[in-house]
Amino acid sequence: MIKKIIVGQSGGPTAVINSSIAGVYKKAKELGYDHIYGMVNGIEGFLSENIIDLDEYLNTDENIELLKRTPSAFLGSCRYKLPKFEDSPETYKKIFDILEKYEIDSLLYTGGNDSMDTVKMLSDYAKEHGKKQLFMGVPKTIDNDLPITDHCPGYGSAVKYIATSIKEVIRDNASFGVVKPTVCIVEIMGRHAGWLTAGAALAKGPDCEGVDAIYLPEVTFDLDKFINKVKELAKVKSSIVIAVSEGIKTSDDKFVCELGSSDKAVDAFGHKQLSGCASTLASIIAKETGLKTRAIELSTLQRAATHLASLTDINEALESGAKAVEAVIEGKTAMMATIIRDSSNPYKVHYETFDIHNIANVEKKIPLEWIDIENNQMKEEFLEYARPLIIGELTPIFKDGLPTHLVRKK
Amino acid sequence: MIKKIIVGQSGGPTAVINSSIAGVYKKAKELGYDHIYGMVNGIEGFLSENIIDLDEYLNTDENIELLKRTPSAFLGSCRYKLPKFEDSPETYKKIFDILEKYEIDSLLYTGGNDSMDTVKMLSDYAKEHGKKQLFMGVPKTIDNDLPITDHCPGYGSAVKYIATSIKEVIRDNASFGVVKPTVCIVEIMGRHAGWLTAGAALAKGPDCEGVDAIYLPEVTFDLDKFINKVKELAKVKSSIVIAVSEGIKTSDDKFVCELGSSDKAVDAFGHKQLSGCASTLASIIAKETGLKTRAIELSTLQRAATHLASLTDINEALESGAKAVEAVIEGKTAMMATIIRDSSNPYKVHYETFDIHNIANVEKKIPLEWIDIENNQMKEEFLEYARPLIIGELTPIFKDGLPTHLVRKK
Repeated sequence: MIKKIIVGQSGGPTAVINSSIAGVYKKAKELGYDHIYGMVNGIEGFLSENIIDLDEYLNTDENIELLKRTPSAFLGSCRYKLPKFEDSPETYKKIFDILEKYEIDSLLYTGGNDSMDTVKMLSDYAKEHGKKQLFMGVPKTIDNDLPITDHCPGYGSAVKYIATSIKEVIRDNASFGVVKPTVCIVEIMGRHAGWLTAGAALAKGPDCEGVDAIYLPEVTFDLDKFINKVKELAKVKSSIVIAVSEGIKTSDDKFVCELGSSDKAVDAFGHKQLSGCASTLASIIAKETGLKTRAIELSTLQRAATHLASLTDINEALESGAKAVEAVIEGKTAMMATIIRDSSNPYKVHYETFDIHNIANVEKKIPLEWIDIENNQMKEEFLEYARPLIIGELTPIFKDGLPTHLVRKK
Repeated sequence: MIKKIIVGQSGGPTAVINSSIAGVYKKAKELGYDHIYGMVNGIEGFLSENIIDLDEYLNTDENIELLKRTPSAFLGSCRYKLPKFEDSPETYKKIFDILEKYEIDSLLYTGGNDSMDTVKMLSDYAKEHGKKQLFMGVPKTIDNDLPITDHCPGYGSAVKYIATSIKEVIRDNASFGVVKPTVCIVEIMGRHAGWLTAGAALAKGPDCEGVDAIYLPEVTFDLDKFINKVKELAKVKSSIVIAVSEGIKTSDDKFVCELGSSDKAVDAFGHKQLSGCASTLASIIAKETGLKTRAIELSTLQRAATHLASLTDINEALESGAKAVEAVIEGKTAMMATIIRDSSNPYKVHYETFDIHNIANVEKKIPLEWIDIENNQMKEEFLEYARPLIIGELTPIFKDGLPTHLVRKK
């Protein structure tokens, strides 16, 4: 029997989402798949039959190594919200028609919360309509907010970039030691969960004093306390660096970035478009304290910086993809590959799969007991959790001074 | 005779300013200096006798290697504007009293335009007052705007970071190919000269389509043309990435970031505090075209990213420092070490020194004939100039997943 599998990428890219594709490809080859397809731009592209054969790109070890070092979604991503069956039965019919046309037996989808919802809805439809295709999720999100899995591929690399950049920014900000302190506010991604921003805590070490305060969406933001904190720090420090999550909210449920303006757009999933939290706070601090301020937004740099990816993260992304292939070979469906931590020191994990219904649309936040709310810092529990995830490097393949990437033909 | 030298760092830090210190230290050791001092926080710290003996830190090869990988100013920097002699003779008296107290025969100062002005004024004072101390500048600025020298240490590393990040951002921005284009505007430093922003052009290559347009301060910014350019691009492209300099100005001599607001602060040198040029343009484009926009400001990341420094740049920073030491040994004063390019292909340079009076307060801009103004791109002349400067890497020394740095004791 001819075996055919397809894999797609969805949602915001990460530094290692392509390593999951490499993992899927290598494992599927090993397990005897005849065709390993990639959907271009996720389910959205799939609906237009925008499908490529991965053999065309990944049939050399050299290209697989390059793919592992390629940022963003090699296959292209989408932010397509699959409609509910009752709202658009024709969408489901079309997807399964295409699957049948190509004789694809399994569909793997790498992504975060919204993408896992797509896996859930497609597998639910298959079950209810007696379809034999199998559906499996491969976790991927810098936000690290998927439940069940210990952590998500993509997170470790983003944190490695964040902590490295913050170490560099702390040095830069401290360089003018004689004058009164500059307050540098670094804005980090994370709408509802503070995992990425918490990663700023890793900058601290024998050669770095670390950030002076961390503000996470898990804790209600109090502007007066924030201003007082900065004023206290300014009495004793010649440089102040603070990490804030884009998603911090005041007690009246307002995003901090809304303290300044109000005309905010909304994306396809109904998420508010956030930006400018650090700028807003920097303006407030400048006004309240007279200190020089600087706002730095790590923006998409933090999810695209494959040049500084964590080797641990790359390997786990690969293994997660491979695990999903193994699962469909065993006939599993409606599940997501998960990373289970056996121990932190020494760091050891293994891979399992878990019912997608317990994963889709559930957001995992940082346990409050890992946060030193009083001092706006992370507790040792978080540090122990995060430290292993940033270990190791995979040096880019430089050409003419720049990292090289694998590209799709047009 | 006991030989004593002192070196200081001034102005905005770069990724390789510490390599110049390493170059000064190694050459001064080799040439038999008994004491190699560092001034903490430049002339400003020197005035408080904040002086350290570099032997304390740099007497092992291991520490010198770490120093080369340490971002920002290891000695601490300052933005201290030395007053004119007639405005504050006591400041000059104090500086020379301290030099005499410590029996320092030569003062080296790494920095950009404002710092070279300090070297000029101190050497002028020495000449006029019969002082025997020698003064030498070591070029350092990511802005690359010092004249005479082919380029400035610090520039190559900043451009390597900018081009790498832009390659990653282009991939990220292109990941959602099916929907209408997102317009990503990347703001790069450079108040009056566009050298850094022009570096974005290096992102283009066989694996990257490059930025769609580049806006430099050398060319008057026309908002209507800009909007039309984006509209034209949006007709044919599914992703648009544009590089803009923070210093671009409209024909009425207004900074673009001022199109939105007007209450801008001014720094110690009377420079306008610029920020938000990309945000301003992103808002305008969103309003004019209805397209999704994103503003990314590379901020201090671009000057602090030693983790991605250019090895060529590191070596040239070292050699520039060494050249300044050789110059004072030869009795030279009132000069700056310069890099002279012998050829671009193969890339070959040598080092000279040049009269500081022709350097201080002169800003070198990009030759207009290197700019393709019609198409908002850089011509081959610029690419040929910039390409060699980003070649090579010096891998960070990673510990616990992060690059390590050398720190001063408190």
